[in-house]
Amino acid sequence: MNGADSLCDTLLANDIDVCFANPGTSEMHFVAALDRKPRMRCVLGLFEGVVTGAADGYARMAGKPAATLLHLGPGLGNALANLHNAKRARTPMVNVVGDHATYHVQYDAPLTSDVEAVARPMSHWVGRIEDAASLSARAGEAIRVARRAPGNIATLILPADAAWTDLPDGAPAPAAVPLEGPKAPDAQAIRAAADAIRSGQTTLLLLGGTALHGRALAAAGRIAHATGVRLACETSNRRVERGITRTPLPRLPYPVDMAVAFLRDVRHLVLIGASRPVAFFAYPGKPSLMAPEGCGIQSMASVEHDLDHALEWLAEELGIASDAPQIQGPVLDSSDIPQSGRLTSAAVNRIVAHLLPEHAIVCDESITQGRELSTFGMSARPHDWLQLTGGAIGIGLPMAAGAAIACPERKVVTLQADGSGMYTVQALWTQAREQLDCVTVVYANRTYATLHGEMKNVGVQQMGENARRMLDLDNPSLDWVHLARGMGVEAVRVETVEDFTRALRGAFGRKGPYLIEALI
Amino acid sequence: MNGADSLCDTLLANDIDVCFANPGTSEMHFVAALDRKPRMRCVLGLFEGVVTGAADGYARMAGKPAATLLHLGPGLGNALANLHNAKRARTPMVNVVGDHATYHVQYDAPLTSDVEAVARPMSHWVGRIEDAASLSARAGEAIRVARRAPGNIATLILPADAAWTDLPDGAPAPAAVPLEGPKAPDAQAIRAAADAIRSGQTTLLLLGGTALHGRALAAAGRIAHATGVRLACETSNRRVERGITRTPLPRLPYPVDMAVAFLRDVRHLVLIGASRPVAFFAYPGKPSLMAPEGCGIQSMASVEHDLDHALEWLAEELGIASDAPQIQGPVLDSSDIPQSGRLTSAAVNRIVAHLLPEHAIVCDESITQGRELSTFGMSARPHDWLQLTGGAIGIGLPMAAGAAIACPERKVVTLQADGSGMYTVQALWTQAREQLDCVTVVYANRTYATLHGEMKNVGVQQMGENARRMLDLDNPSLDWVHLARGMGVEAVRVETVEDFTRALRGAFGRKGPYLIEALI
Repeated sequence: MNGADSLCDTLLANDIDVCFANPGTSEMHFVAALDRKPRMRCVLGLFEGVVTGAADGYARMAGKPAATLLHLGPGLGNALANLHNAKRARTPMVNVVGDHATYHVQYDAPLTSDVEAVARPMSHWVGRIEDAASLSARAGEAIRVARRAPGNIATLILPADAAWTDLPDGAPAPAAVPLEGPKAPDAQAIRAAADAIRSGQTTLLLLGGTALHGRALAAAGRIAHATGVRLACETSNRRVERGITRTPLPRLPYPVDMAVAFLRDVRHLVLIGASRPVAFFAYPGKPSLMAPEGCGIQSMASVEHDLDHALEWLAEELGIASDAPQIQGPVLDSSDIPQSGRLTSAAVNRIVAHLLPEHAIVCDESITQGRELSTFGMSARPHDWLQLTGGAIGIGLPMAAGAAIACPERKVVTLQADGSGMYTVQALWTQAREQLDCVTVVYANRTYATLHGEMKNVGVQQMGENARRMLDLDNPSLDWVHLARGMGVEAVRVETVEDFTRALRGAFGRKGPYLIEALI
Repeated sequence: MNGADSLCDTLLANDIDVCFANPGTSEMHFVAALDRKPRMRCVLGLFEGVVTGAADGYARMAGKPAATLLHLGPGLGNALANLHNAKRARTPMVNVVGDHATYHVQYDAPLTSDVEAVARPMSHWVGRIEDAASLSARAGEAIRVARRAPGNIATLILPADAAWTDLPDGAPAPAAVPLEGPKAPDAQAIRAAADAIRSGQTTLLLLGGTALHGRALAAAGRIAHATGVRLACETSNRRVERGITRTPLPRLPYPVDMAVAFLRDVRHLVLIGASRPVAFFAYPGKPSLMAPEGCGIQSMASVEHDLDHALEWLAEELGIASDAPQIQGPVLDSSDIPQSGRLTSAAVNRIVAHLLPEHAIVCDESITQGRELSTFGMSARPHDWLQLTGGAIGIGLPMAAGAAIACPERKVVTLQADGSGMYTVQALWTQAREQLDCVTVVYANRTYATLHGEMKNVGVQQMGENARRMLDLDNPSLDWVHLARGMGVEAVRVETVEDFTRALRGAFGRKGPYLIEALI
């Protein structure tokens, strides 16, 4: 047994049995070891952003980390954008990054770089394996950190010789690492939240992290029903359980002016696994902090706390029975569903909400065009809603691949802005290779619509040729049907409500990857 | 005039008039400023690896840096792999990376990260702009470092508020920064090299950097002709002037065993802008250093020296007249050019060498499949040969776009391995958008052939399903014709020598981007 075998066994002993990989020469022994472990499911990505985006989507749905396999500093560099998103989502992930053999680093071969330095900005923990003998212990440390609630990015650097060296006799056997659960909630913080709710002044519970699903979300719904307290979720969330029967959570709007208006009347802002509301970007003359002056902000529990317990405790503190009714979301009026005509993003959003299959997983990178779905989604059949958490675009298609691997029995629906989709378009190939049940709707507006808006937000009113050419995706237009087919995914382009509805029904009625380019 | 205007003007005052860009919200004022400077050519990439790869290709051919425009830490992360290649090539480049407004960073908005930390591993210099008033001076520093011979990666972090703030009265006007030329060669080192050549023992001049073209290369050819000294270039080179009439430079082989054999008889290894030969990777039982024991290694001049002067001085030291004859390369035997049959990589290489237009720029990311072109290329019509310098795959298509923008009158030919091409496949769209005269030949072997070889090199003989699925690009096969059309590039697939020859002749006979998928 060599170091690479030991690493695989340590991962498997800790129930990490999916490895998203884009390996290179320095990782060949690890690949050979994976080959000897049929229990480990290896999923190839043709670009490293696919690998980390898929590992993020997987962990959000599986509730446990995947491993990734990346090649040296540049491979890790390609992985950083989606690692940033995963770090912001507090997704658990164990990255295995190959490096040159320890004795080879000194020669500064062309692919040499400071792997630790590349890893650090987007990792919660970075460790280097010293040798084969200490490998399993170090890997255990990475796994322990990654799984510490609610999750962390642990990056483990694996020198080639540590992988290929045989373990010395008596080296410790790969072992399971104890799980570290979430922190216990704080009684005083919960009483303070209850006091705010009882004050009679407008109070908003801003939920994040694990408060967005399961018992925590149900408790929040009971609290809102019994007390009339407002609920909301942050702008960007790891995973929200949404749809009719679930507690509806309005989303804090992205545009600063809208967010300020959303929060205007709030006197007590109670953070439960959420951060205080901050503008995504700074704009001349607009605030960075969006809560009104005089609004008290209190943190009832952080993302690291047991939020199921925290919200149930709060309900109890408020005297609300565990079988008390929850608030209900709006019902989608079927007269709101367009039946014909030219396709628009509004039509796409309504039709998606209307047709969404029960228990679908929605991977939402629709950016500007899908914002209304924050509302319509509440009325759809129950589903999970996974969002872009860190603002680093290019997560939709990979996240869908990962989510589909975690939940093979569920339909995964990706709402994908065209500009953002191009950053990790290679994920379509992984969807085809693994025959994942992923339906992608591309909002083909052929522009970086966000940036058009942002030009105005930052005070630029007029736009000339140089700017327009940097903000529009025209001339030539992208052809998503060709792109998808180039990677083995069936696809269709639609321009009308009728064709979109038909295509979406068709896609939902079959299995396997499919892409609909919605010209809007 | 605001800070963004001042930055644009500083770039233009230093003859940096191309900006490869993938901007985001925090860079909107810079985009608006670019808009007011029609002299600045703005080129959009749909992914940041395209941006830095294109800036690398541009600078290699233009002999001066381009600017890049990138969005915060994650955008820079996506750019790192090709920055690594450019850093290894010592390509000059000025990266402008937007960041949050200075006062906004403290709020840790979702896209916040440590931009300096992301930049440092792949930059020679990193600087942050403090405010609009000091912006131009700081930008001047970046430009000075970037252009210091032979070139450096300078990364300048631009907070949004420094860009949008108006300059105070009396702020210094954007100014030209003095160019810092290469270092003067060292007389003693040149005499030592001459002594080695005169010793009668086998001597090899290993050339790199600016010794691979122009006067330096010609002088090397005269020296080799007069003295019989061996010449070679490194495995990976920034830019080689190659083809008949040019001094032929055998390339140090990539595989360790072949490199060791190549160097076996050498007693004096003279480095001229090159590094000592080091294995690309370490392998169990194979050496890291590839020169034989007892071989003296001397550095006559580094990449930072004036290599034109150094080699002409060496010739003079050896008493060789400036009009003495140079060695000549092999002539391609037309009977070596296949006329028909199933296409193979060997056939592709020979036909490309045979048909290559004069003064073409070859962007070579053919990896395993194009290795023979190191030899055949010497017999082709005179051309420039740009290679993958840092081993971070995914540079071919972007580098071609940049080279074509630097040299619009020349045909750019990209020799592209299929696996590597997928990392920055978005570059095809930039080729279409800018209507660049780029012909891409995809070596479609549908596998990571390097890794198959490396599995054996690291001692893995047997390969099972998990490994095969990580090394092969099949099931589904990529369809490069669809991929290219999806991004507006005309394309054709060929499987026979006849069809490839016809397609390549056709592509060389027209203008504009074109892709040939060569099934081999």
